[in-house]
Amino acid sequence: MTLAALPDLILEPLVKAALLEDLGRAGDLTTDAVIGAEIHHTFVFAARETGTVAGLDLARLAFTLVDPSVTFTVHVPDGARVEPGDRIATVEGRARSLLTAERVALNFLGHLSGIATATASLVDAVAHTHARIACTRKTTPGLRAVEKYAVRAGGGFNHRFGLDDAVLVKDNHIAVAGSVTEAVRRVRDAVGHLVSIEVEVDSLEQLEELLLDPVDAVLLDNMSPETTGKAVAMVAGRMVTEASGRITVDTAPTLAEAGVDLLSAGWITHSAPVLDIGLDHVDG
Amino acid sequence: MTLAALPDLILEPLVKAALLEDLGRAGDLTTDAVIGAEIHHTFVFAARETGTVAGLDLARLAFTLVDPSVTFTVHVPDGARVEPGDRIATVEGRARSLLTAERVALNFLGHLSGIATATASLVDAVAHTHARIACTRKTTPGLRAVEKYAVRAGGGFNHRFGLDDAVLVKDNHIAVAGSVTEAVRRVRDAVGHLVSIEVEVDSLEQLEELLLDPVDAVLLDNMSPETTGKAVAMVAGRMVTEASGRITVDTAPTLAEAGVDLLSAGWITHSAPVLDIGLDHVDG
Amino acid sequence: MTLAALPDLILEPLVKAALLEDLGRAGDLTTDAVIGAEIHHTFVFAARETGTVAGLDLARLAFTLVDPSVTFTVHVPDGARVEPGDRIATVEGRARSLLTAERVALNFLGHLSGIATATASLVDAVAHTHARIACTRKTTPGLRAVEKYAVRAGGGFNHRFGLDDAVLVKDNHIAVAGSVTEAVRRVRDAVGHLVSIEVEVDSLEQLEELLLDPVDAVLLDNMSPETTGKAVAMVAGRMVTEASGRITVDTAPTLAEAGVDLLSAGWITHSAPVLDIGLDHVDG
Amino acid sequence: MTLAALPDLILEPLVKAALLEDLGRAGDLTTDAVIGAEIHHTFVFAARETGTVAGLDLARLAFTLVDPSVTFTVHVPDGARVEPGDRIATVEGRARSLLTAERVALNFLGHLSGIATATASLVDAVAHTHARIACTRKTTPGLRAVEKYAVRAGGGFNHRFGLDDAVLVKDNHIAVAGSVTEAVRRVRDAVGHLVSIEVEVDSLEQLEELLLDPVDAVLLDNMSPETTGKAVAMVAGRMVTEASGRITVDTAPTLAEAGVDLLSAGWITHSAPVLDIGLDHVDG
Amino acid sequence: MTLAALPDLILEPLVKAALLEDLGRAGDLTTDAVIGAEIHHTFVFAARETGTVAGLDLARLAFTLVDPSVTFTVHVPDGARVEPGDRIATVEGRARSLLTAERVALNFLGHLSGIATATASLVDAVAHTHARIACTRKTTPGLRAVEKYAVRAGGGFNHRFGLDDAVLVKDNHIAVAGSVTEAVRRVRDAVGHLVSIEVEVDSLEQLEELLLDPVDAVLLDNMSPETTGKAVAMVAGRMVTEASGRITVDTAPTLAEAGVDLLSAGWITHSAPVLDIGLDHVDG
Amino acid sequence: MTLAALPDLILEPLVKAALLEDLGRAGDLTTDAVIGAEIHHTFVFAARETGTVAGLDLARLAFTLVDPSVTFTVHVPDGARVEPGDRIATVEGRARSLLTAERVALNFLGHLSGIATATASLVDAVAHTHARIACTRKTTPGLRAVEKYAVRAGGGFNHRFGLDDAVLVKDNHIAVAGSVTEAVRRVRDAVGHLVSIEVEVDSLEQLEELLLDPVDAVLLDNMSPETTGKAVAMVAGRMVTEASGRITVDTAPTLAEAGVDLLSAGWITHSAPVLDIGLDHVDG
Repeated sequence: MTLAALPDLILEPLVKAALLEDLGRAGDLTTDAVIGAEIHHTFVFAARETGTVAGLDLARLAFTLVDPSVTFTVHVPDGARVEPGDRIATVEGRARSLLTAERVALNFLGHLSGIATATASLVDAVAHTHARIACTRKTTPGLRAVEKYAVRAGGGFNHRFGLDDAVLVKDNHIAVAGSVTEAVRRVRDAVGHLVSIEVEVDSLEQLEELLLDPVDAVLLDNMSPETTGKAVAMVAGRMVTEASGRITVDTAPTLAEAGVDLLSAGWITHSAPVLDIGLDHVDG
Repeated sequence: MTLAALPDLILEPLVKAALLEDLGRAGDLTTDAVIGAEIHHTFVFAARETGTVAGLDLARLAFTLVDPSVTFTVHVPDGARVEPGDRIATVEGRARSLLTAERVALNFLGHLSGIATATASLVDAVAHTHARIACTRKTTPGLRAVEKYAVRAGGGFNHRFGLDDAVLVKDNHIAVAGSVTEAVRRVRDAVGHLVSIEVEVDSLEQLEELLLDPVDAVLLDNMSPETTGKAVAMVAGRMVTEASGRITVDTAPTLAEAGVDLLSAGWITHSAPVLDIGLDHVDG
Repeated sequence: MTLAALPDLILEPLVKAALLEDLGRAGDLTTDAVIGAEIHHTFVFAARETGTVAGLDLARLAFTLVDPSVTFTVHVPDGARVEPGDRIATVEGRARSLLTAERVALNFLGHLSGIATATASLVDAVAHTHARIACTRKTTPGLRAVEKYAVRAGGGFNHRFGLDDAVLVKDNHIAVAGSVTEAVRRVRDAVGHLVSIEVEVDSLEQLEELLLDPVDAVLLDNMSPETTGKAVAMVAGRMVTEASGRITVDTAPTLAEAGVDLLSAGWITHSAPVLDIGLDHVDG
Repeated sequence: MTLAALPDLILEPLVKAALLEDLGRAGDLTTDAVIGAEIHHTFVFAARETGTVAGLDLARLAFTLVDPSVTFTVHVPDGARVEPGDRIATVEGRARSLLTAERVALNFLGHLSGIATATASLVDAVAHTHARIACTRKTTPGLRAVEKYAVRAGGGFNHRFGLDDAVLVKDNHIAVAGSVTEAVRRVRDAVGHLVSIEVEVDSLEQLEELLLDPVDAVLLDNMSPETTGKAVAMVAGRMVTEASGRITVDTAPTLAEAGVDLLSAGWITHSAPVLDIGLDHVDG
Repeated sequence: MTLAALPDLILEPLVKAALLEDLGRAGDLTTDAVIGAEIHHTFVFAARETGTVAGLDLARLAFTLVDPSVTFTVHVPDGARVEPGDRIATVEGRARSLLTAERVALNFLGHLSGIATATASLVDAVAHTHARIACTRKTTPGLRAVEKYAVRAGGGFNHRFGLDDAVLVKDNHIAVAGSVTEAVRRVRDAVGHLVSIEVEVDSLEQLEELLLDPVDAVLLDNMSPETTGKAVAMVAGRMVTEASGRITVDTAPTLAEAGVDLLSAGWITHSAPVLDIGLDHVDG
Repeated sequence: MTLAALPDLILEPLVKAALLEDLGRAGDLTTDAVIGAEIHHTFVFAARETGTVAGLDLARLAFTLVDPSVTFTVHVPDGARVEPGDRIATVEGRARSLLTAERVALNFLGHLSGIATATASLVDAVAHTHARIACTRKTTPGLRAVEKYAVRAGGGFNHRFGLDDAVLVKDNHIAVAGSVTEAVRRVRDAVGHLVSIEVEVDSLEQLEELLLDPVDAVLLDNMSPETTGKAVAMVAGRMVTEASGRITVDTAPTLAEAGVDLLSAGWITHSAPVLDIGLDHVDG
């Protein structure tokens, strides 16, 4: 699978908002005062630590939305693993434009590369199994589309994008409905044929009930590797199996070895530190 | 100092965007199918780990923008330190509305409380000195106003909010201008009387040049505690002194003890993990 | 299944845009000049022909966004079948507000009720079978969420909401991939576990190929009832079967009787005439 | 008269909204997975039935907003009558871009061509008279500007665009004012010299009262051809005469022959079926 | 005629934008730091000079959008003439909210009252004639709807609101068309029956040509009072006559006495100084 | 100092809004009807009176946002002083595009040049002193960024841009805090190190109190030249001194001669008349 870019149409409003947030009502006071309009610079984005790149289109737009004459050249694509010192992209043009846009470009690139890197660390940890890594809806408000993209760049897969594109029946729903069976019945009655249904179960008893009428996927929440293994055996391929709850690089392998199809982790979007990427001046 | 709330006018567009991002084109399929319109619930936001709270107004808006009849009661204000199990807020109303809005509320609250908690950890680390903790412009795109607010909630202070509200002369500016002196001269010539000027210096030589005509603040970038101490002595109160570069809970105390007025750290906004806050169902 | 309302958060921007489009830069010249500010009116929305109602929340918002003091009382809910003369809702308040907002309210209500009515006509036509009626992405630009809602109000089900919430492999995709099998393989490799996959087939040969590795649903495009019946038999419950292509009240029954699970029709959203609903003045 | 295009500035927000509505949070899953980024296609928009074209600028923007490198070549302009098989436009570029944008392009083009076609059918029906065909404010919410444009493309004329650009005194206004005369007096007192005034009358008695002090136009609502003829004679050229109420291809000729200047019909905007236009792959 | 208010729906986006422009990314630093959250104030808007009030709804919204609990009491309505010291409105509530919103409220109120006052000065100057005072399209970008409203508050009338709601044939149009007659012919052919047509003439020769086929109004541009008088006599009531060009309080009476129906002036919207209105603290 | 341009990113939304406000729902009726699509024109912006130019980027965008093929050539830059007849810029392209966009271009250019001209008149008046001229927050709602820019173009300096980028302690703040000292203490406690603090004083007694602990700047409000001179002497360079209150071309010199660093005036933004700039047709 190759990583497909998101259309600029989706990215541009995010980058514009970020630039306007930084430019405020007067623009870049320092640069405008100090740097002459005619001076040109070349800068290189370079990795300062090992990781996976994501967000180059957003970095590009940060510059070209400030100044369409800036050229932005990509050296390694989103999804590439980089080592310290690796050149990621080069940007060239009016020094004023580059200095004005650099922070927004780095903020996007560092944030999304951090997510891709975190995702990749989990992907690597379960590479010896058939398990996939997935994200959740625990994303930074306003950035879901690009954070989910960063997960894909890191080799992960996306869980549902919102409340509207798949069903996930959780404990509160089951409690109100009275039983797993009734909750599932209500859902089947309501949704279209392309809406996948997943049910969260906390115990093998609940799983047993669910297996009377299997749905598309089951979320095995906070189960031990042993219980998870039993659950996988019970499901026997009739549903996609997903494990969640404190999935880290340390806990992921054992759970994956228990046979689940999917491990989902919130921290790869909500708590991944940025990837340290620097912007180095290149002498002309 | 008490923490002043941001007007809802600034917060509402962020929360609306986050809700629409989650609701998509069809709303909460699961909840709408399973939960009857007449059912009411009460949920409590409770800390799952030690930290500092920030973002309660955003959490409140997540619910009231979905359903104005929901009541949201705050138990501890933004800026409060909480321990595992502490109740932060209670939300009560139609179960459908609560379940639909909870993820957005938690995403904001966890993210901003994470930033407040990270800030507070640095504030604590230098509490025995007069040094303040400050953030940077390394914020999540689109969320600068609320992330800077979260820093204040954590006891920190804000650096400039954008490129337009203060001058920060950096190495690239000095290189183009030819000297610190010339860069400062250009800035003074251009900006209004309420625009503060800070200059980043990498060495005591640059600092010496700057002291010929001191500005409002000097940024001592990546200096050792020893050099920092010397710099503080050279400045002798004529400028605010700020230290930056890999400021952590471990490195902060020594630098603060060197006498600087301010330690600034990017990671408290760009890499702080969320604070783990849960939403517990309360039996009516 | 009961029909769940869309949150006002989704509806308000549509109604605001429609009101501003009608108010222009000077508001309601005629009403402002002729009707005194103190005069109150009561109007009743009444069906002028047989049909199914949809869009009452949008009609309500048209009035309350112009004047929050207007009261809007619903007599029959969205999804109700009405006969000529049936009262649908009553609106009461300042005459100026009512006259200013009425056209926008009627434009939404008539349009969406027209879609609900068209949908219901197909639902009725296949009521003796197990087939469901579905809509398509052939919706009026900008109104997809509410038109899909109107389909649900008419007793229909929603196909995918966009390009991003389910996979539909069509002839062009198969042509480029080289085969159904290869197209499906590429998709499975790329998408998350909650993304349903549907493949459009034009012939039983293609269907046969698809059945080697069945996906979630198959779209039987423009097949005769006989071929459709054979296809359903071949599928034998391993995929959801959907028939499309010139589905009308006349053609739907035979196709449904051929055993498909779903009939989808574009015209119920793109070509349904409005339902004729009038607004009658009630003497105080 | 040649048809003047609307500026892209007015069209772009509509097309962007429609694209974002279709792309959702992840873009075109199917195409991104199956179609390689390097593949190019050529597609032709071709009429599948007889009608009048409108909306080519919107179709063009659907493609170029997704991918500025796509070329869109117009074969027949908006306003042209087409027969089944006639080529309308050709679009060429990356297959991914074309497949992603095609539905939005077709949704606009089909919808607006449907309105143009409906309008043209009425224009044809009264071509032997001097009567013009006009639309109303019964338009699809959010699309008034482009639907009114489509009416012009079909050879029709526009009634007022909103509540603010002309006065239309209706029965409710007259009832509150107490008389036609008083309603007109109030309006004249309030509005500027470029605001045209039209009054709706239901009877020849009302018309008689209006003729004591004629305004710019009179709307003869739901009158028989005979009464309409009498009304036209009474007016004797002192006002523009407009007939409305169930204007169809069948009823329009007789009413037009009664001598009115204008026939207005709501259905040409609110209930016109789409014009069937296909997008055919052209082998390179 | 009483002045009709513009719907809040039109005003709110303008006030929100102005508040956000002033609040920036951190809100009111001074007030938040100095004024306790519990302190309440009462302020009175009072005229500091003679003039006409306009914009009270915008002033009210400035406060209530910041804090819905603020009460805003109007003492004299928009359109009222005030003398120095006259109380215009009282605002009461949290001191923080009042101090934060006051500048935006005053900026709107002063600006629009300035326009109303300028308009009223011309209205007074021609009060002994039948001439009306009108504004132009020379308005502050973004504020046309409210500036046109302020003209009405000052007793003036509105010229067209934009390029789309009436025709104004100017010298450039006539030059390209070749003659007044041809320009008018093209316009009549193109526009709907409710679009008024006005033609600008520079000489009595052009007027003569126009009178061969009169339109709704004629704009007599930059003519002397004598020529204007002759033009009015030539028109003899067949068109509305409008005089424009350097209309001041000094020049207006003579031109009005020449018999024109309308005097239009750009300066009342583009160059009117603000009306000086103060906000006085009232001791509780 | 050379004047730095604001990024188009900040200007485009303002120009788009102004164009859409003028184009309305149907575009330029007159031009579309009269001027053929193939006709090209050249127009020159020329000064009709003496003044200082500002707003050329906005004028350019008015044309290029309507039609990217228009060329806009600048003859004198923003900030240049012009005499009657001086050519400011030339615009060339489709006559339709030029005529459609000209009013918006002129509205921006006239308004901002008016502000620049007013500013320059004050700058000239105090040119023999070291005093700078500054604007206030008394700007036209929605246009603060560009009006502040126009002040810079006129040779002035900007006061704070909003409530959030600097502290200005006024009489109401001091009254609530109880003393100047306490108000300043609260502020210092709350704000970051780059936030400048200015305090408004009404008397030399207040100034004396403030000098016990000087802040960045002091605003001497409505003081006579004599008192101002005494205040400047008391401050003795320890704070920036700013005089405000009825600063006109007549009063400015004496106050400036009293030694203040800055004179601030609200009228240069809120009451400056437009600079008269014409658009002349150039025969090809």
